Amino acid sequence: MSGSRPLVISMGDAAGIGPELIATVFREQPGWARHAVVAGDPVCLDRALAVAGGGLRRVMVDALTPWQPREPGEMPCVATSALAQPPAWGRVSAQAGRAAADAIAWGAREALAGRAAALVTAPIHKEALAAAGLPFPGHTEMLQALSAQHLGVAVNEVPVRMMLASPELRTVLVSIHVSLRQAIKAVTRDNVLDTLRIAGAHFTRLGLPRARLAVAGLNPHAGEGGLFGREEMDHIAPAIAQARAEGLDASGPHAPDTVFMRARKGEFDAVVAMYHDQGLIPVKYLGLEQGVNVTLGLPLIRTSPDHGTAFDLAGSGRADPESLRAALREAARLARMPLTF
Amino acid sequence: MSGSRPLVISMGDAAGIGPELIATVFREQPGWARHAVVAGDPVCLDRALAVAGGGLRRVMVDALTPWQPREPGEMPCVATSALAQPPAWGRVSAQAGRAAADAIAWGAREALAGRAAALVTAPIHKEALAAAGLPFPGHTEMLQALSAQHLGVAVNEVPVRMMLASPELRTVLVSIHVSLRQAIKAVTRDNVLDTLRIAGAHFTRLGLPRARLAVAGLNPHAGEGGLFGREEMDHIAPAIAQARAEGLDASGPHAPDTVFMRARKGEFDAVVAMYHDQGLIPVKYLGLEQGVNVTLGLPLIRTSPDHGTAFDLAGSGRADPESLRAALREAARLARMPLTF
Repeated sequence: MSGSRPLVISMGDAAGIGPELIATVFREQPGWARHAVVAGDPVCLDRALAVAGGGLRRVMVDALTPWQPREPGEMPCVATSALAQPPAWGRVSAQAGRAAADAIAWGAREALAGRAAALVTAPIHKEALAAAGLPFPGHTEMLQALSAQHLGVAVNEVPVRMMLASPELRTVLVSIHVSLRQAIKAVTRDNVLDTLRIAGAHFTRLGLPRARLAVAGLNPHAGEGGLFGREEMDHIAPAIAQARAEGLDASGPHAPDTVFMRARKGEFDAVVAMYHDQGLIPVKYLGLEQGVNVTLGLPLIRTSPDHGTAFDLAGSGRADPESLRAALREAARLARMPLTF
Repeated sequence: MSGSRPLVISMGDAAGIGPELIATVFREQPGWARHAVVAGDPVCLDRALAVAGGGLRRVMVDALTPWQPREPGEMPCVATSALAQPPAWGRVSAQAGRAAADAIAWGAREALAGRAAALVTAPIHKEALAAAGLPFPGHTEMLQALSAQHLGVAVNEVPVRMMLASPELRTVLVSIHVSLRQAIKAVTRDNVLDTLRIAGAHFTRLGLPRARLAVAGLNPHAGEGGLFGREEMDHIAPAIAQARAEGLDASGPHAPDTVFMRARKGEFDAVVAMYHDQGLIPVKYLGLEQGVNVTLGLPLIRTSPDHGTAFDLAGSGRADPESLRAALREAARLARMPLTF
């Protein structure tokens, strides 16, 4: 069924590199015209097409059902805002923040309603969102709120986790954008257990109900029996025990400094990391080009490239589309879309 | 001058893999007989020679001056203890802990007195040291105490830092074996500045007075202007400013999740990491085989392999000598020894 639904790509902040990366992907892999539609602002997308070059045509789409695949050479677009002119490259603006949010909201609703197979988000700028008066620090929180609204539950009833994946390592984070002090406080039995359950459900949906989930410790050498901290004994080990009792193949807590190397060598399918940098340092170590961010726990499939708006490169056409391409491929894989190119 | 002095290799805990790795290195690269001497216990070293095979001969050396290079096929040894029999493989024992410490103490004194070019330490076992009644959690603290004694100063007047080096990344750690909570408290202006000074002095001695020292932040995105923590503003940035005022090429605080990738690509000569796992996760990510631990700040050159005693492998002859080999090469390089093989 999902083969007949498109991916939605939200354009991101139009003062950044998102729109031109999207246009470049359609130019370089024209087959995406059959499988994906861009949610965004027409004048911004036109400017992006000019940057990307190659004579791509923008074609407007009104609704996703029934999905009418487009031809190579076309970039199917849905207008989710109507700016008079595109925002200046590389500047924070409320206008760009609002247009970026409109594209995300439309794409999320289509995915939540089952009309889109997945949502792939180009990068947004936190300050632009704030300038537009939107109370979300980033995509994740916005998608969490939209999902809770869709499900008719409170936001905290939609626990989500960020997974960062490279071709050789997948890591799921207990917490993300908080200080390291706060991150330590977030290492509780419940938070670690929720992370394991969310990761387990993700891999089960992918047909891997016995995914090998390695749990990193928080402290050096995973605390060395309480010598360098007790979080492993008090919180992490009990969460692992409970996850195992629920049928998950969870192991650990493992020494943080070697668990990612071991996963890279194939010993585990994913590593649960206790804080942002513990997981992101190894995923990014070999290069950012292939990193994909996947939000787990949402009632929709969402991926994004692993980079920001790169205001300094916007408009130059020199930004590397590899991570966006990887995000599109990963979204298609998660949605089990049989790509026809 | 140092070309005429040998390296000392301390045998490590004889219940672990240290002695057999040393013997294997002498067997595989017989040229080390001209440049290195093993400090250890004769019966333990004999057992290691039997495990390593290859018909190597143990030859006893009484003193390092004048250094008489030995021939390939020989393993020059200094007896620093006299056990009646070797300890059982893979078991913690006070006997093995004491013998390991005796070897380190002898090697350190020779290096401090200028009779040895450097000290390379095979792995010891913390519990065995404790069983022997020694008040040191590891090599670093023991070498710090011996150095302070040699210099006639208090231990805290010999600030040391651990550097971990792989062929593609060098990282110097502000703190090591403490809980992550304690590590955060150790991120003070003085500790970061000391780390920069110690790292700067190290690279200056190597002929790189303008080594590019990148300083990682503590928090995600290096705190994002105080949003995710203030350690960068309150402690790290002032330390960097002072280091620059002192002539060091220090930069940062950089986002922790990308600074190691950037250093790997050649943008920096070394990264100052705020805590154990921040630095060790990336150094170890590509494999442990090539990792070398270098203690900076001591009045002697000391390197060690980046692994432990591996009690489970001891006696099997299957342990990988690559990291010990890398530690020997690095010690020789730091001591500017012109190796003759």
